[in-house]
Amino acid sequence: MLRSVSAAASSSLRAGTARAARNLSSSVTEPAEPSIVSSTFPGPKSDALKRELDSIQNAGAVQLFIDYAKSTGNYMVDVDGNAFLDVYTQISSLPLGYNHPAMVAAVSDPRNVATFVNRPAMGVLPPADLVSRLKNALLSVAPRGLTEVQTMACGSCSNENAYKAVFISHIAQKRDGKPPTAEELQSCKYNLPPGSPRLSLLSFDGAFHGRTFGALSTTHSKAIHKLDVPSFDWPIAHFPEYKYPLEEFQSENKKEDEKSLAHVEELFHEYRKKGAPVAGLVVEPIQAEGGDRHASDDFFRRLRALAAKNNVLFICDEVQTGCGPTGKFWAHQHWGLDDSPDVVTFSKKMLTGGYFYKSQVRPKESYRIFNTWVGDPTKLLLIEEVLKVVNTEKLLDNVKDTGEYLQKGLREVSKRHPNTFFNVRGRGTFCAVDLPSEKDRNKFITEMHLKGVHCGGCGERSFRIRPALTFQRKHADILLDRTEKVLSEKF
Amino acid sequence: MLRSVSAAASSSLRAGTARAARNLSSSVTEPAEPSIVSSTFPGPKSDALKRELDSIQNAGAVQLFIDYAKSTGNYMVDVDGNAFLDVYTQISSLPLGYNHPAMVAAVSDPRNVATFVNRPAMGVLPPADLVSRLKNALLSVAPRGLTEVQTMACGSCSNENAYKAVFISHIAQKRDGKPPTAEELQSCKYNLPPGSPRLSLLSFDGAFHGRTFGALSTTHSKAIHKLDVPSFDWPIAHFPEYKYPLEEFQSENKKEDEKSLAHVEELFHEYRKKGAPVAGLVVEPIQAEGGDRHASDDFFRRLRALAAKNNVLFICDEVQTGCGPTGKFWAHQHWGLDDSPDVVTFSKKMLTGGYFYKSQVRPKESYRIFNTWVGDPTKLLLIEEVLKVVNTEKLLDNVKDTGEYLQKGLREVSKRHPNTFFNVRGRGTFCAVDLPSEKDRNKFITEMHLKGVHCGGCGERSFRIRPALTFQRKHADILLDRTEKVLSEKF
Repeated sequence: MLRSVSAAASSSLRAGTARAARNLSSSVTEPAEPSIVSSTFPGPKSDALKRELDSIQNAGAVQLFIDYAKSTGNYMVDVDGNAFLDVYTQISSLPLGYNHPAMVAAVSDPRNVATFVNRPAMGVLPPADLVSRLKNALLSVAPRGLTEVQTMACGSCSNENAYKAVFISHIAQKRDGKPPTAEELQSCKYNLPPGSPRLSLLSFDGAFHGRTFGALSTTHSKAIHKLDVPSFDWPIAHFPEYKYPLEEFQSENKKEDEKSLAHVEELFHEYRKKGAPVAGLVVEPIQAEGGDRHASDDFFRRLRALAAKNNVLFICDEVQTGCGPTGKFWAHQHWGLDDSPDVVTFSKKMLTGGYFYKSQVRPKESYRIFNTWVGDPTKLLLIEEVLKVVNTEKLLDNVKDTGEYLQKGLREVSKRHPNTFFNVRGRGTFCAVDLPSEKDRNKFITEMHLKGVHCGGCGERSFRIRPALTFQRKHADILLDRTEKVLSEKF
Repeated sequence: MLRSVSAAASSSLRAGTARAARNLSSSVTEPAEPSIVSSTFPGPKSDALKRELDSIQNAGAVQLFIDYAKSTGNYMVDVDGNAFLDVYTQISSLPLGYNHPAMVAAVSDPRNVATFVNRPAMGVLPPADLVSRLKNALLSVAPRGLTEVQTMACGSCSNENAYKAVFISHIAQKRDGKPPTAEELQSCKYNLPPGSPRLSLLSFDGAFHGRTFGALSTTHSKAIHKLDVPSFDWPIAHFPEYKYPLEEFQSENKKEDEKSLAHVEELFHEYRKKGAPVAGLVVEPIQAEGGDRHASDDFFRRLRALAAKNNVLFICDEVQTGCGPTGKFWAHQHWGLDDSPDVVTFSKKMLTGGYFYKSQVRPKESYRIFNTWVGDPTKLLLIEEVLKVVNTEKLLDNVKDTGEYLQKGLREVSKRHPNTFFNVRGRGTFCAVDLPSEKDRNKFITEMHLKGVHCGGCGERSFRIRPALTFQRKHADILLDRTEKVLSEKF
């Protein structure tokens, strides 16, 4: 399949592919290729269910109804019986694809029933195995120097609580061991300073960090996500806007780095002056919802240093980039930092939300970072299984190999369709390509579905690729083949 | 057991008790009474695990480590082998106690494995059974007139998104069908008006609605929950402060209602005048974390009317009161409203977060109330089983019966210890009692644990009772007996 597109890439790496395929237990039950029986997207059964759901809630965002029991590995089967190759994986949230044997075994194990039945208030009454699970699962992949971890239920809650921890830490440093004043304790109950301080958290133009009020104040990707919702007055810095291919625009892109860093420094100054100093900044290693906007490793190293110099805590939001899709477990590990971020937030592929942090970000008092559930032990149980598979099946190597192969293939497609499919960019299998307009991008995504590939968009006109960590060259071949066909036949 | 305390109550209702006991399948495997083997609270194994956890995160809030597999019905077993009668149920979040057979069966059913293994992005790719689950589970208990439902992952997220829906609805009404302006669409991306409008949401002194930034701006229960976190300038109204027993303080308490309602009206006016009009208000039927502060049904009817008159949407936060503990499924159903709340939020015993709403609160555009997971189908599967049991075992009747019996018993204890155990109040089994000070309350709770009852506090000095819906008179007898003993022996 797709000999024409990927022949060159294949020849040099074929031996590696075969070896990878043998190692991945998830691939054994997959279909050989997509199979589409509906002539429309969505098919009639999905369409009927969507209309029914719309009588209960706004169902406008629904694409398809899925038969999760029939889905397997990299293939997602919908209620009309269409089997799609899935390069979107539930908005980038399935590490091992569908029904991975290790996860099925964990769920089916009678010894785990009580974990699924009895959800604890984990902050007060943790299960007996919490410490071992945190150590065996989450802390086994903690970024260097981040020795502590807090679980949360979702990505937005992870960021919200990371921001809170940063504000609390900022004021603790100012208090220098002294207890809060009576005025602080009284005023905070009424949302007033000094107890509810005028502090701010810097984010970047085009960023996405979630949709609850704190997280949304740092989100700037799409107007419809923010419209009509009151927001904090927190500073928003310019994010580098790169031109592609990178090797042709080195000096222009370098200037973008300078522009962004200068703006960050200016905003630190401006918000200090206006009495709402910046306690922390939050940044994604790749602006994902914003349209897969990348910045250089050098930019991030300098940003990290700038934050440290200004006593601003550095939060790295790895909700979408974390858990391996860029070829390292955490995307910020590509940067080569001397000093790790102070906080790294996660969710999605990690199955549980949460954040890692340096010990100086720990609140001294209990109940300050807290809620009823603070996460869910069933997700810890599952991520422990996932991390075992990532190790035993060497999935980071698989991502690097497939990613290199896929990006090479995408650049070849782009060379043949330079006006409709351009700005190929990515790290590992975390890739994106631009089309001329939002309309073209949406048409492309619909046509890809009709050819058996489930995929999604991001930003204004980008096509994003977010496969499982088990995505191999044989899957990339199908993706590249269908991409080529859609562009040749429909554009 | 406890003949002296409850003899009068028992005699008139004994036949009912026996009937209820036969109907509750969960009671069959329970121990007959608590069994305590540790001489300290917490026991040595819990204590060692707590110290280990404290090296990974602040473990100060941890009480005990629990063996969830060994816990059953109304009894919670910790890692030291102590079996406690549980009247706190994971901060009021277990509807049927531990390892209820119906929930164990649902988790063990091989047909449900795919639901537990493959967590979907439910807003875009819902499972085939989503519509039927929403109808059979959540909508089967929807408050009158609230025809739509949105799922969320936790209580804070439920409130955050309910607030967003209220703001969006408020502006949609102002726009009167016109699309947003270019200025609105542009300004909101930078957190600025008019796109990020100056609107506010009214809450009450002593309220607790969660800990993320939006929810926390409406929370005013304890300073340590709010200290050092930036907050929105939103209005905070006086909540009625009742004196007990109610029948002795009718005119004083009536004045408290008036004072609160007048303050609400004043704040509507004040915030309109200062350019941040109130779009919605949020209120708990019983201020739970704030210390089980009740207000009269008449107060709530008038508050609801006042909101409607001022075009302020009325959000009822039933995160802690919902799912039956007051003897009606939703606590606001005690009020006898002509016009239901516009939004009712839930979580905890409902196992999934979410909110019901009237159709006029639905955003017209998709993706405005959205996130990757928007809840979790595994929790819908479990709450469907819970609601079946609530119906078949007539658990609301059980709550009413046990609640009446328990409150009568608590009042009798209070009569014998009027200076240490007073202000008995409650609805159903959702009860609380005050002790003279925080120190006394905390000592009482520790002593209750040493006598085999797991319970908790709320507010400054209240002891709160939050048993499962399966809590029966025989359990209440044990609770009352241990309460009497602790008060007699230790105070």
